[in-house]
Amino acid sequence: MLKHLVRVRAIAKTAISSSFPKPKNKISCHSIPLTFAISSSPMAATDESLRKSLAEKHAAVEAQGNAVRALKAAKAAKPEIDAAIEALNALKLEKSSIEHSLLGGSDSREAFRQSVVNTLERRLFYIPSFKIYRGVAGLFDYGPPGCSVKSNVLSFWRQHFVLEENMLEVDCPCVTPEIVLKASGHVDKFTDLMVKDEKTGTCYRADHLLKDFCNDKLQRDLALSSDKVAELKHVLAMLDDFSAEELGAKIKDYGIVSPETKNSLSDPYPFNLMFQTSIGPSGFSPGFMRPETAQGIFVNFKDLYYYNGNKLPFAAAQIGQAFRNEISPRQGLLRVREFTLAEIEHFVDPLDKSHPKYPEVADLEFLMFPREEQMSGQSAKRIPLRDAVSKGIVNNETLGYFIGRVYLFLTRLGIDKDRLRFRQHLANEMAHYAADCWDAEIECSYGWIECVGIADRSAYDLRAHSDKSGVPLVAHEKFAEPKEVEKLVITPVKKELGLAFKGNQRMVVEALEAMAEKEALDMKAALESKGEVEFQVCTLGKNVTIKKSMLTIQKEIKKEHQRVFTPSVIEPSFGIGRIIYCLFEHTFYTRPSKAGDEQLNVFRFPSLVAPIKCTVFPLVQNQKYEEVAKLISKSLTAVGISHKIDTTGTSIGKRYARTDELGVPFAITVDSTSSVTIRERDSKDQVRVDVDKAASVVREVTEGQRTWEDVWSTFPHHSSTSADE
Amino acid sequence: MLKHLVRVRAIAKTAISSSFPKPKNKISCHSIPLTFAISSSPMAATDESLRKSLAEKHAAVEAQGNAVRALKAAKAAKPEIDAAIEALNALKLEKSSIEHSLLGGSDSREAFRQSVVNTLERRLFYIPSFKIYRGVAGLFDYGPPGCSVKSNVLSFWRQHFVLEENMLEVDCPCVTPEIVLKASGHVDKFTDLMVKDEKTGTCYRADHLLKDFCNDKLQRDLALSSDKVAELKHVLAMLDDFSAEELGAKIKDYGIVSPETKNSLSDPYPFNLMFQTSIGPSGFSPGFMRPETAQGIFVNFKDLYYYNGNKLPFAAAQIGQAFRNEISPRQGLLRVREFTLAEIEHFVDPLDKSHPKYPEVADLEFLMFPREEQMSGQSAKRIPLRDAVSKGIVNNETLGYFIGRVYLFLTRLGIDKDRLRFRQHLANEMAHYAADCWDAEIECSYGWIECVGIADRSAYDLRAHSDKSGVPLVAHEKFAEPKEVEKLVITPVKKELGLAFKGNQRMVVEALEAMAEKEALDMKAALESKGEVEFQVCTLGKNVTIKKSMLTIQKEIKKEHQRVFTPSVIEPSFGIGRIIYCLFEHTFYTRPSKAGDEQLNVFRFPSLVAPIKCTVFPLVQNQKYEEVAKLISKSLTAVGISHKIDTTGTSIGKRYARTDELGVPFAITVDSTSSVTIRERDSKDQVRVDVDKAASVVREVTEGQRTWEDVWSTFPHHSSTSADE
Repeated sequence: MLKHLVRVRAIAKTAISSSFPKPKNKISCHSIPLTFAISSSPMAATDESLRKSLAEKHAAVEAQGNAVRALKAAKAAKPEIDAAIEALNALKLEKSSIEHSLLGGSDSREAFRQSVVNTLERRLFYIPSFKIYRGVAGLFDYGPPGCSVKSNVLSFWRQHFVLEENMLEVDCPCVTPEIVLKASGHVDKFTDLMVKDEKTGTCYRADHLLKDFCNDKLQRDLALSSDKVAELKHVLAMLDDFSAEELGAKIKDYGIVSPETKNSLSDPYPFNLMFQTSIGPSGFSPGFMRPETAQGIFVNFKDLYYYNGNKLPFAAAQIGQAFRNEISPRQGLLRVREFTLAEIEHFVDPLDKSHPKYPEVADLEFLMFPREEQMSGQSAKRIPLRDAVSKGIVNNETLGYFIGRVYLFLTRLGIDKDRLRFRQHLANEMAHYAADCWDAEIECSYGWIECVGIADRSAYDLRAHSDKSGVPLVAHEKFAEPKEVEKLVITPVKKELGLAFKGNQRMVVEALEAMAEKEALDMKAALESKGEVEFQVCTLGKNVTIKKSMLTIQKEIKKEHQRVFTPSVIEPSFGIGRIIYCLFEHTFYTRPSKAGDEQLNVFRFPSLVAPIKCTVFPLVQNQKYEEVAKLISKSLTAVGISHKIDTTGTSIGKRYARTDELGVPFAITVDSTSSVTIRERDSKDQVRVDVDKAASVVREVTEGQRTWEDVWSTFPHHSSTSADE
Repeated sequence: MLKHLVRVRAIAKTAISSSFPKPKNKISCHSIPLTFAISSSPMAATDESLRKSLAEKHAAVEAQGNAVRALKAAKAAKPEIDAAIEALNALKLEKSSIEHSLLGGSDSREAFRQSVVNTLERRLFYIPSFKIYRGVAGLFDYGPPGCSVKSNVLSFWRQHFVLEENMLEVDCPCVTPEIVLKASGHVDKFTDLMVKDEKTGTCYRADHLLKDFCNDKLQRDLALSSDKVAELKHVLAMLDDFSAEELGAKIKDYGIVSPETKNSLSDPYPFNLMFQTSIGPSGFSPGFMRPETAQGIFVNFKDLYYYNGNKLPFAAAQIGQAFRNEISPRQGLLRVREFTLAEIEHFVDPLDKSHPKYPEVADLEFLMFPREEQMSGQSAKRIPLRDAVSKGIVNNETLGYFIGRVYLFLTRLGIDKDRLRFRQHLANEMAHYAADCWDAEIECSYGWIECVGIADRSAYDLRAHSDKSGVPLVAHEKFAEPKEVEKLVITPVKKELGLAFKGNQRMVVEALEAMAEKEALDMKAALESKGEVEFQVCTLGKNVTIKKSMLTIQKEIKKEHQRVFTPSVIEPSFGIGRIIYCLFEHTFYTRPSKAGDEQLNVFRFPSLVAPIKCTVFPLVQNQKYEEVAKLISKSLTAVGISHKIDTTGTSIGKRYARTDELGVPFAITVDSTSSVTIRERDSKDQVRVDVDKAASVVREVTEGQRTWEDVWSTFPHHSSTSADE
């Protein structure tokens, strides 16, 4: 049973580690459903009061309607009836205005998302994969600018984590044999609950259908009683905790049917989310596409520990593809069937989770959402990291250190710090072995999205692979001088046991030797008082009678030269695609064109992630200008600045708009052969710089060696009085 | 039939594109077998002459043996017999010395490889994947230094190709729906021929067994007649051209049995090398793990062309994982089941394959192995690229440009230019649609290995996806002014055709409209002379009779405003893992330790690819030195130089040896608080530099801004007279 529970819990972890919402069956209950997350945002309070005044207005409309009918029935004077009707209409107007506001929140989020997504697709930041074959749900390509953003994010990740911390980076295959994922628990428990349309066989995620039903009711049925509202909200909050039976019962209760055909649905049953395949030609070696990269690190622990000079702590890291065969992918780029993960496994002595570089981040202060605040209905608040760690809200220094580092990573990428929070897992979300878990959640049009999971997973993973493989994945601490330790020694008397249990002797001996200290001392006491005791041998599936003559249990003093232990692992795990999508939303804005006749799109990317750092424009099509542009282009290539020349004859204003839409931070316009202008994207300010300095100025400002403010105060300003922009 | 042939050929391409030897069935016959490649190297001549003198010596030994026996039989005098025996022994000695030389070549290659591989595995450059579970054949992890080398190679690739050429990089999923790989031909033809042990069911590659048999015979059976040698060599050369039947016949002829059990083997049959899976929960959407990344680019052609302003030429690029479910992987890191590809698809107007940057590489001169030299038994020779292109040996400028760029890429990584050659595909290796193909082959202990394929694939791939998807993947050339063109117009008379063919009318019409110009003109002539003609309709699988009344065929003058055409694609495709493995072999050497008691291993990596650029050693364990070391470490991090501090108390000589074995180019030894020494790995020369300058000197020299020679002539030399080294 324990074994079963352990595996079950492993999955709760897995989901975090990939930063994608975990399977939604009973077992894996670690992430707050979206709706709960939204309802705990400030937006929710408004929503609540609007709903209340809508109910009041609804009652008022009804009452006034009755009044009008009563006047008519009583054949009252026309002016009197007219006045009552006018009042009724006024009330109706007020009611519909409240309805509008109530729906407006999600409508405007939807509209904002649509304009971001339109821009992203039009400029090929991403492309639905295999589009000419009508695509495959949940698979996306990064087009040229998206690919460049991704590669910038990953190389900054490598710089910020791997290089800075001297982490051991590894690169393991995606194809994984069954035994590895059996040990991790994925083969047995990495499932989502699915229902099938009983006639067409179309598959749906059971929790999605229930969630859609509840959200739809809450949004559209404005006359819902407050009891019903509370019930539906409770269902949404509990969604992740429902068993297959409970989900099935709710679906029946609410009369939920197949969305397209209205046919009835099957009972929910588990579907394993791993893509399965077969390794080699025999057909006897099942394999899977890995659902996370972490296992590749755990199975290499022994070699990596040796590589690190048999010293703790150390961290290993991996960037790579992971795969989840989602039942019915939704939410665009947020829930996909193949994605890039960047994972860190920091191995540490469980008795010492301090971190030497913790002081470097301790003074940071940002939005945190501890367990207690969540339980008491409060919202996230700014807490100095130092306080969170010293008060024990964050379990230990190393966990705190990584939370701080993740905060710096995300905000340097361009994530808005006011829409980033670190949410602690509730007790029921966390695996039983985990010491503490925090998710970096980013708010976007879909709500608060889990983008990075930072978990102290204790010794669980290394133990699971030690058990399955028989290879001890442990660390050693050599004592300066041998220590005397008191140890409980259990010595079976094999002759007696052999006589009593014959063929079962081995299993009884193993069970006796595996007793924990307390259990063994209890047995010792019982044997001394009663002479024999009942003892459960799990591997035999029954109890046996152990007599005093069958074993000795006693404490002995032993000299030990070293301590052997399984390290704890602290795991920051990054869903790269989700971070990038949130970054797109956080950096997107529109501004009117100069003529004021249209809204222009801009991505406010920091230079660090901008897909192209600079565009070069000859002001007019002219051979001399084009030669200067080529010269500058060559210098930019030489200093490693990605850029693009645009020699199309379109107006410079249009060319600026095109480049703003790609988030290019700087533009060099060639309008003479001696000097050029450099324009900054967001301020639209321009300075005039000598041709031979242009590339190095752009390099310095994109690489962060100088600020735009500095450039602005150093070089002469250029004002575009013409129709430039 | 045409369709069939086209698909068949598609596979020959695929194999190249992934840079891994292609499936070995009849169809895919584009790469020269290893043995042929070796026999065309200088080594082969020696081998041939040795074999000849061995045969002579063998005959001499036999003759002398007979002489001895004759003397004994004739009861000759003892001194006479002794002299004859002495002569016999001398001959035997000479014979065994020749045998030794003959085997020695492969023995020493084997020994060299073993010492490279031992070092690579011991220092975790790579690790057999899932080792604690006894591994999976053909799957390897890159450990920390290997991962770092790989990431350096990929970022240089991005710099050298993508950035330098403004290529459009994309990033597509590995999971691919069946229809895409049906269009490319992989579903039907991406196979290897397999045989099964008839009792145990163990699978083997049929050509591998035959190849092993032949090589084994040639190596061990030194008494082989020259006829038999020629036959076996012929088999090896033809290996890729054998059909399943021919392979089966040879296996029977030679009595080849299952290597482990000696059981008999099944007949060869094709096994598809793609890992198959299922997309979504329904089980009705088969998918595969992509065998190459190229298809992801082809299906996006339309969007990418638009992104490029509807202009040609442009190139798209992709780096990513590819998968091949090899029957029985061998050759360590060279033949694996999952690997990283970097592919470029350069789209170009088939009427203009010039390249603006071609002059930049035209003066390069390197080993080329044109078709003609291969056919006439010559060896590769140094040819100026300009000559190869101007003489038409290389088909066009763009192909030549990429050959030159690949040469620069590989040699800058550290590949030995004398063990790198560009081999042209023979006519029978190349797909019928291909204009020209060249492989960059690198010589290593396994022979000449195909590491990069550079192919002009004409319009094949875009056409295949246009046909299958119905989405035209074409480019447009707008004419400055409309052109009058004479066009052959085929106009079916539908009424007549309908009467004659009823339900088959559509297929007959389509076949008529699809006629090529010559075919249509022939039909016109035949109809005019005979009034009717037999016409084959493939889709009906039969001939029909076409009468004069059924269609008109005539030339018309039309005004055209643009030319619509399918671009040609030139595809350089890089097998990253293979390049890295060859790089390991080319940069590895050993040198005696100072005491002369052992051989020390060194990887002569250029700074560009070295996994760590610098190590920092405090000379002795001492707090002051360690603080200086930390200070320097911080400065190195700040300037982005990957490094490692080694504060272990081991001798500095041992620490240098450890760092040489990782190929770290520079070591900073802290032996005072004001200045430190910087040591260069290969010369072991040391200079003395101020503490605050150390990081920037290392940065300049690793980033190529200054040479070591320059550093050596600028700073005071430091000679390690102590036991330092």
